[in-house]
Amino acid sequence: MVKMVKKNYLLAPGPTPVPTDLLLEGAQETIHHRTPQFKKIMEEAIEGTKYVFQTAGDLFLLASSGTGAMEMAVVNLVSPGEKVIVIVSGKFGERWKQICETYGANVVPIEVEYGNYVAPEKLDETLKEHPDSTVVFTTLSETSTGTVMDIEGFARVSKAHGKLIVVDAISGLIAQPLKTDEWNLDVVVAGSQKGFMLPPGLGFITFSESAWEKAKTNKTPSYYFNAFAYKKNPAPYTPAVNLIYQLKKAVEMLKEEGMENVWERHRILADATRAGVQALGLELFSKRPGNVLTAVKVPESIDGAKLVSLMRDEYGVTIAGGQGSMKGKIFRIAHLGYMSKFDTIIAISALEMALRKLGFDFEYGTGLKAVEEVFEREGV
Amino acid sequence: MVKMVKKNYLLAPGPTPVPTDLLLEGAQETIHHRTPQFKKIMEEAIEGTKYVFQTAGDLFLLASSGTGAMEMAVVNLVSPGEKVIVIVSGKFGERWKQICETYGANVVPIEVEYGNYVAPEKLDETLKEHPDSTVVFTTLSETSTGTVMDIEGFARVSKAHGKLIVVDAISGLIAQPLKTDEWNLDVVVAGSQKGFMLPPGLGFITFSESAWEKAKTNKTPSYYFNAFAYKKNPAPYTPAVNLIYQLKKAVEMLKEEGMENVWERHRILADATRAGVQALGLELFSKRPGNVLTAVKVPESIDGAKLVSLMRDEYGVTIAGGQGSMKGKIFRIAHLGYMSKFDTIIAISALEMALRKLGFDFEYGTGLKAVEEVFEREGV
Repeated sequence: MVKMVKKNYLLAPGPTPVPTDLLLEGAQETIHHRTPQFKKIMEEAIEGTKYVFQTAGDLFLLASSGTGAMEMAVVNLVSPGEKVIVIVSGKFGERWKQICETYGANVVPIEVEYGNYVAPEKLDETLKEHPDSTVVFTTLSETSTGTVMDIEGFARVSKAHGKLIVVDAISGLIAQPLKTDEWNLDVVVAGSQKGFMLPPGLGFITFSESAWEKAKTNKTPSYYFNAFAYKKNPAPYTPAVNLIYQLKKAVEMLKEEGMENVWERHRILADATRAGVQALGLELFSKRPGNVLTAVKVPESIDGAKLVSLMRDEYGVTIAGGQGSMKGKIFRIAHLGYMSKFDTIIAISALEMALRKLGFDFEYGTGLKAVEEVFEREGV
Repeated sequence: MVKMVKKNYLLAPGPTPVPTDLLLEGAQETIHHRTPQFKKIMEEAIEGTKYVFQTAGDLFLLASSGTGAMEMAVVNLVSPGEKVIVIVSGKFGERWKQICETYGANVVPIEVEYGNYVAPEKLDETLKEHPDSTVVFTTLSETSTGTVMDIEGFARVSKAHGKLIVVDAISGLIAQPLKTDEWNLDVVVAGSQKGFMLPPGLGFITFSESAWEKAKTNKTPSYYFNAFAYKKNPAPYTPAVNLIYQLKKAVEMLKEEGMENVWERHRILADATRAGVQALGLELFSKRPGNVLTAVKVPESIDGAKLVSLMRDEYGVTIAGGQGSMKGKIFRIAHLGYMSKFDTIIAISALEMALRKLGFDFEYGTGLKAVEEVFEREGV
């Protein structure tokens, strides 16, 4: 058999492809972090990142993954024994629950099955039942199911009840609209390896005035993730210097494009992906699919793990399988970050070829036709 | 209108995409060229390149484009007034003619119209008519038309008449089978920015024993391109140090893949491209299409220049238009060098979208279906 060139296409929900310009930013000499030169770079990177989060409030850069930023939210806002509401519709809602429980919180979960979503009305009911709860934890894009949550709605309800709202926007930020200040979000966390188009290694966290107020009385011990350390000095410990060079450039690129355009671009790629898989006769997994990734039910006749490994190992196209209980039942195609129309074309073409190889029947080109029709309709 | 991310896809017949591994080779510190360290690197690069040319004879690396290597062939083998045969089926056959004439050769051209080819029998007839000619100049892949020549046949005929044969394999080498020693080719020239997957800047030239014999009595003055200078010292003038780092690595990659596989890989991508454009109702331009690039007639209703600029400026997909008299009449899609199946998918998808935008009628996905069917048939 002829061996073909295998280029690598990262179409999983993070890490996402890093543009060469950003790779080269990171390839520059590491300077010392306690210098006026680096201080200026870091300040500019933070300012630009605030625009991406749509906030004028406090925002910190962490040398951590997104999970570190989640932990920072919990250890600064939740004291042992405190009652918190956690919206759980997948693995990352479960992660909020686990972190809160690790620090002794009294967690009231609002749980729905994977693929489903929680409506703001349900949160409203729960808050009525638990007036002694203090914080609502939720997820913008539940990466394990491809579901987007109504964060604006959750925030309105939470504020009406006088509660804080904390959002995991790790995979969702940039792909989905999110307006930290306008929506009154108290804490929003994110990571570098998603919409920011950067390698992994940076976490982000915002703090509202109400969040600071709450943090002042917090009793959970913390050191590396103590928010007041960052408030005093945005680089209390050694920051990830080269990633911050890259971040500065990445947020310049996002600012130049404009967040409205960035969101629309992701919406179009998501629409095209959904159209492509549905044209092949496949079913979307999520009841409220977002613009970060598309989760698709694996057809009965197909081995889901085989599909993912065939695409990755033979075609170089990395998509994601299902996580945890979803293993083998769904696959997930991201349209997140530095993605062109042709990445969607590649995703659907690789899917067509892999499905046919595994015996799934349809006419070649069917999914691709649907993708191209979306692009035509959108005029892109 | 939403502005989409525009990644750049180089699908023109050179420069071709450079893999990151090779880019990084070139990003290393430049060392001095008169050192044992560099001498060793250069020797290894030359040895590897000989494998790609399938020769055990002399091969030199030039700091020049491919055209410089063509000039080197002429100034070392052709004296003023000498009669030479030049096979001309496009712009690059014309270039041999121009260089030979520049140095006062008496050129007997075998000319056919663009898109057509010359059969070895025709060369045989011409050599019978011109027994006083000394050298046959030809082109493996005529880049301006996408036509591949029967170099093995030309060589057999040339040798039967006791003539030297010089081959411009600039765009053809690596994409098309070429066996310098087995086919008795006297001089073969190539350039770095094609099948070698490297940036432009390096020229290559081989010399057979017969070529050296001929060069000894040559009367055309030459300095930079004097072959005896390179025979004495492979780096008579400053070589392109960093490109040679990259070449050493590139030929290692080609050796690891194996030339038979490399040729087959190009054949499959070419077959798929031809199938894709024909499924769209378009016509191939060449009567003997090769595996380097596919030249396609622009449909009557379409502005050829607009098609090329739309694909490049709006989609980021660089294909080539027609050159010289072919301007606006054909377009050319390369499948040369570091190309995966998905580059062909991208080419045909971009073509589908651009043609539709310009009003050409067909059903979306038609070309892509044909491409995927070729890949399935080939089992890749």
